[in-house]
Amino acid sequence: MKSAVSSLVSSKNQSHSAISRPILQHSSKPISQTTFFIPTIPRNTKNLYSQRYKKLQIRPNSTSVMASSFKPEQASVPPALPLPTPPVTKFNIGLCQLSVTPDKGRNIGRARKAIEEAAQKGAQLVLLPEIWNSPYSNDSFPVYAEDIDAGGDASPSTAMLSEVSSRLKITIVGGSIPERCGDKLYNTCCVFGTDGKLKAKHRKIHLFDIDIPGKITFMESKTLTAGETPTIVDTDVGRIGIGICYDIRFQELAMIYAARGAHLLCYPGAFNMTTGPLHWELLQRARAMDNQLYVATCSPARDAGAGYVAWGHSTLVGPFGEVLATTEHDEDIIIAEIDYSILEHRRASLPFAKQRRGDLYQLVDLQRLNSN
Amino acid sequence: MKSAVSSLVSSKNQSHSAISRPILQHSSKPISQTTFFIPTIPRNTKNLYSQRYKKLQIRPNSTSVMASSFKPEQASVPPALPLPTPPVTKFNIGLCQLSVTPDKGRNIGRARKAIEEAAQKGAQLVLLPEIWNSPYSNDSFPVYAEDIDAGGDASPSTAMLSEVSSRLKITIVGGSIPERCGDKLYNTCCVFGTDGKLKAKHRKIHLFDIDIPGKITFMESKTLTAGETPTIVDTDVGRIGIGICYDIRFQELAMIYAARGAHLLCYPGAFNMTTGPLHWELLQRARAMDNQLYVATCSPARDAGAGYVAWGHSTLVGPFGEVLATTEHDEDIIIAEIDYSILEHRRASLPFAKQRRGDLYQLVDLQRLNSN
Repeated sequence: MKSAVSSLVSSKNQSHSAISRPILQHSSKPISQTTFFIPTIPRNTKNLYSQRYKKLQIRPNSTSVMASSFKPEQASVPPALPLPTPPVTKFNIGLCQLSVTPDKGRNIGRARKAIEEAAQKGAQLVLLPEIWNSPYSNDSFPVYAEDIDAGGDASPSTAMLSEVSSRLKITIVGGSIPERCGDKLYNTCCVFGTDGKLKAKHRKIHLFDIDIPGKITFMESKTLTAGETPTIVDTDVGRIGIGICYDIRFQELAMIYAARGAHLLCYPGAFNMTTGPLHWELLQRARAMDNQLYVATCSPARDAGAGYVAWGHSTLVGPFGEVLATTEHDEDIIIAEIDYSILEHRRASLPFAKQRRGDLYQLVDLQRLNSN
Repeated sequence: MKSAVSSLVSSKNQSHSAISRPILQHSSKPISQTTFFIPTIPRNTKNLYSQRYKKLQIRPNSTSVMASSFKPEQASVPPALPLPTPPVTKFNIGLCQLSVTPDKGRNIGRARKAIEEAAQKGAQLVLLPEIWNSPYSNDSFPVYAEDIDAGGDASPSTAMLSEVSSRLKITIVGGSIPERCGDKLYNTCCVFGTDGKLKAKHRKIHLFDIDIPGKITFMESKTLTAGETPTIVDTDVGRIGIGICYDIRFQELAMIYAARGAHLLCYPGAFNMTTGPLHWELLQRARAMDNQLYVATCSPARDAGAGYVAWGHSTLVGPFGEVLATTEHDEDIIIAEIDYSILEHRRASLPFAKQRRGDLYQLVDLQRLNSN
């Protein structure tokens, strides 16, 4: 199933007009009581949008009609799917916060051992860190990258994940590794089912390009190519939306996953010593609270001597935004219970899905809209 | 300027089909490496959307074109406006956390005194709590409601705000009061300029209807009507987006305001003893961090003997999601500095606006899209 996104976002045959006017004018004049200020866009552009969106009215999904003139079912386009019944209500997740070294063989062995230990402690789902088989650096990505699609010897890291998931009958959200595909490199997360088969592959959509002077500067786009698709997958432990590290910053991605019926979002991530204390927990709690689902994250352990120093603090957050389990920065395995029955309770208490204002705003999931 | 939202959301002339199929099927089958699971919607519904959205391709705003095939400028529809140059870079905001009693005259007098004190301490913008002239209860709203449009004696609360703002030459985001308009009641925030004129009036868009068994149950919709429009206003202290309490839960509203060029979001709010400790600070920090702007909130002081016990904790949050000033639950006035020059720095460090994936998701602001 391949989406028709490419046809949708084509910009051919679009007329360009040279007409323009200043967009922003600070108005110091008071406005009347019954009017409201709406920042304007250039007239020619605005008219173009208005025409293109003239037919935005959409019919509510017949299974999720809500009795409101505010059209909550239109706040997501297409309408949000109801939460699917998960194949399991309660299970344990294992978050393996791994130390990462320049020795790939050692990294793979260490990851295998941690997964086995997590499974032995009852984990039915194991989450690994971002870039766990390689140092996190633009110099290392090409050297450690593997051809995941070729598999076997071309990808020893994912071969191990496949073998272990099958042998232990667990689901693995395999953190991420640098992936080589043709002449491109990606930061890629593989999800393996209990049968050892690759169920989904997420290539980091939002590349980590930031510059906080004197603190942290990193440009993944120097070496990596961004993925082209959100990734959500039905597993034996529920419907899981995948993001990698910087992907968590973009609330729209989590909203899309929630509207697609995700029970759990998994974000392998290697925040650093600047953005970690600032935002790592806040982001996880916000995504869980706003979207009323579980969020699990997994970071590499901290190596103060590495070129890129990870924050650590792998965490599981519940659907009220509450931290259910977390750790510090050393190598560690967190085992924590996920109880999907709580999702319904939380959504009954705070029924956002019935309260959104689809008459005022709409989040469009372009890929789902155009999927066949 | 009246928006054409009503014409947009009309559902007349829409064909309904009886064809349907189950929406959710948990697939236990592995999928191939190169395909991804996209939860589906009924075929007939989906086709309808696809047709309606066929023309979604939009031309980038000519003033904000970014060189990316990911079309970041299309992640907001219409495209996000650049941050306007604010009329002032640095100023003090005053958050007046007021105790509220059943005596409206006393409440008005107390509010006036607090505003005067805040201004005397240097505040150029004063924010008041949600429902500061009346107890917070469905029984009280009709009794304490005022006809704001009529003004004068019909609205002593806003008459006071107008007089004080004009006399002290400050901007007031006047918390909220119950408003009577015809046979309807609203939870309404009035913004007064330094000339004492009403610049904008925000009627709470998302009514507070929640039910957390054994903790908190409240249904504003028993007495109140929801507002019909987001409210953003240019003032002498910047472009301010307004939300009231439960409005802060809906991330789409904050995203709309950010795309309209807001420097600051003000949320008068009376969270309670359950949702306060759970979510009050988390929501503010999340909205500020995700949208890279300032967020200010103002709560009533706590009255443990009241029917509805407010959490307090009025707060100012900076554009990295950092708490800049806050208080406990007693009556208090917070004076804190806002420095808009930081907005540009934060956005340069984490350039979300250039990194969003408008090829994958789009947030549509229906009112701005249709404004003339």
